[in-house]
Amino acid sequence: MNLRIPGPTPVPSSVLQAMTKPMVNHRGEEFANLIVSVTERLKYFFQTSNDIFIFPSSGTGGMEAAVVNTLSPGDKALVVSIGSFGDRFATIAQRFGAEVAKLDFEWGKDADPAAIAAKLDEDPSIKAVLVTHNETSTGVTNDLEAIARVVRPHKAILVVDSISAIGALELKVDEWGCDVVVTGSQKSWMIPPGLSFVSVSPKGWEAYAQAKMPRYYWDFGSAKKYLDKKQNPYTPAVSLYYALDEALRLMMEETREGVLARHKRLGSYFRNGVRELGLSILAEERCASNTVTAIPMPNGIHPKELRRILREEFDIIVAGGQGKLEDKIFRVGHVGYVTKEDLDDVLNALRVVLPRLGFQTKA
Amino acid sequence: MNLRIPGPTPVPSSVLQAMTKPMVNHRGEEFANLIVSVTERLKYFFQTSNDIFIFPSSGTGGMEAAVVNTLSPGDKALVVSIGSFGDRFATIAQRFGAEVAKLDFEWGKDADPAAIAAKLDEDPSIKAVLVTHNETSTGVTNDLEAIARVVRPHKAILVVDSISAIGALELKVDEWGCDVVVTGSQKSWMIPPGLSFVSVSPKGWEAYAQAKMPRYYWDFGSAKKYLDKKQNPYTPAVSLYYALDEALRLMMEETREGVLARHKRLGSYFRNGVRELGLSILAEERCASNTVTAIPMPNGIHPKELRRILREEFDIIVAGGQGKLEDKIFRVGHVGYVTKEDLDDVLNALRVVLPRLGFQTKA
Repeated sequence: MNLRIPGPTPVPSSVLQAMTKPMVNHRGEEFANLIVSVTERLKYFFQTSNDIFIFPSSGTGGMEAAVVNTLSPGDKALVVSIGSFGDRFATIAQRFGAEVAKLDFEWGKDADPAAIAAKLDEDPSIKAVLVTHNETSTGVTNDLEAIARVVRPHKAILVVDSISAIGALELKVDEWGCDVVVTGSQKSWMIPPGLSFVSVSPKGWEAYAQAKMPRYYWDFGSAKKYLDKKQNPYTPAVSLYYALDEALRLMMEETREGVLARHKRLGSYFRNGVRELGLSILAEERCASNTVTAIPMPNGIHPKELRRILREEFDIIVAGGQGKLEDKIFRVGHVGYVTKEDLDDVLNALRVVLPRLGFQTKA
Repeated sequence: MNLRIPGPTPVPSSVLQAMTKPMVNHRGEEFANLIVSVTERLKYFFQTSNDIFIFPSSGTGGMEAAVVNTLSPGDKALVVSIGSFGDRFATIAQRFGAEVAKLDFEWGKDADPAAIAAKLDEDPSIKAVLVTHNETSTGVTNDLEAIARVVRPHKAILVVDSISAIGALELKVDEWGCDVVVTGSQKSWMIPPGLSFVSVSPKGWEAYAQAKMPRYYWDFGSAKKYLDKKQNPYTPAVSLYYALDEALRLMMEETREGVLARHKRLGSYFRNGVRELGLSILAEERCASNTVTAIPMPNGIHPKELRRILREEFDIIVAGGQGKLEDKIFRVGHVGYVTKEDLDDVLNALRVVLPRLGFQTKA
């Protein structure tokens, strides 16, 4: 099977094998060594000396953790949304009582840093800016470096959903000044879903000290106290740590620069291939994502029909659209454990299938 | 290694192997079949026709889910605590703004159903009774059937932490009338940590409809809406579903009655062996747990020293005490994938080690 959705992503066989190791005491020495070792290597890929915590949860749990540890009910949060996952961030903040000011951009476009700066200048009471690094629903990558630059001079902290980005797309957490950064295990990290990783800067800790949203499971303070003892406050997802240990070994072997360059190269390669078929890309090339590509459906073809044929005849799994793009696009993931050959498979299959569905490909 | 802590518990090799299956689309047909199949079999072991939801989290996450879906800030909750995990339930409820009335029993004793009844009769405004089924920190099993009987006539719902019990100890969710029941994957279910299972009764849903504590990740309504589509609201921990699928197959093969009987037999067998050595059991036999045994340290021996020798010389991992019992007991788990031989190993090692530490064993 060629699993070409933007997560869960394919898992290398040595990583799958790592999960067959027997359980250990999560308060014992083996686990202590493991949690220290994976946390240190995550810091390397996050390019940070901030604290990083590993939660037994999906990425959405990490987003909830980021919100409830940095805000109080009634606090103003500026949520920058360019798609479905930006909207999710706003919903989480609202559910916990934040006063959300939403800055929406058209789905398929990236966020304008100047508009964010204007909002912050207008309202100095804004406590946090919540932003999606890479919007999985539209295949758009925000210019996070530029966004961070306009947020940094303000009192507000910058909270980043980098679930489908960091580890595959450049994010210099410390250099850019990102206060809380969230990701999920099933994307660039090449392991199964079930872990989220969250980094917290000193400015993030200052926000934590004021934040009154209720929390127990997600509490950063508790996570920190136990990590200092090389433990998790409650039972960690041990087998996924084994997977992470091996996946990080593979990533270190390829080098951070190598992993980032591969995603850049393959993203560009895939988009060129799509355009050569005569299809278009939802995102402008300037902000197109190197982890997932969203492709508007050619006239008259339903994504469900295309996806069914790819699945049944070619064993290729691509994703549909989400929310308001549900019937309008299909999406191809190229994040984590992915090669040029995997993408050639998709392009070759499209070259065969699309004409049958009435769309004459160019190449 | 003989991992004799009360979780994570040893995982059968076929369950470990099941986790090496490749990832699938969590919104596709294979996963749809899987989530339906495991949920149905969980209902069989829960002896319920209530809804059951699977969260990507540890058991503590399931406890938080149980609280935030059934209570509003200011609601009165009666928390019955017989140890460290009962205290945790109270802390979670307090963090989210419940007005907690705590009913504490001495560590090592079980809860008195009559005392619970008295509290409920005294204060009809109590919205929920939170209780631990099996207290992992003391090796005591509450008489949940009797507790449920006294709660049932009241308006209050019964919320049960059965993390280290259900699946190994009898819990008839429907017959006894337990409204919300929580467990974790790493105990009786013989799979690695990372999933929690939560059942919700019709009375539990009535509480949900009134409950105003903030929630997104744990929201039962959202879980239900997506489960109706054979999905999870956000990415599920796919590899742990593979493990669960295989573990449930093994449990069905042994039969529910067989699994329960084995835990009863081995619990009793182990306690007898401990007593034959001249050691005592923290719990009275009447309420002693069949999943974990807490053993007071013989005079002058520190649990750390005993545990170190068992680990280094015998490759046997037992647990220490928690909270106020930290230096006073050691605990041996016999839940999930456990045989008589595993327990004989522990008894034989104790027979050798204790005299060296100055305690003359009887047998």
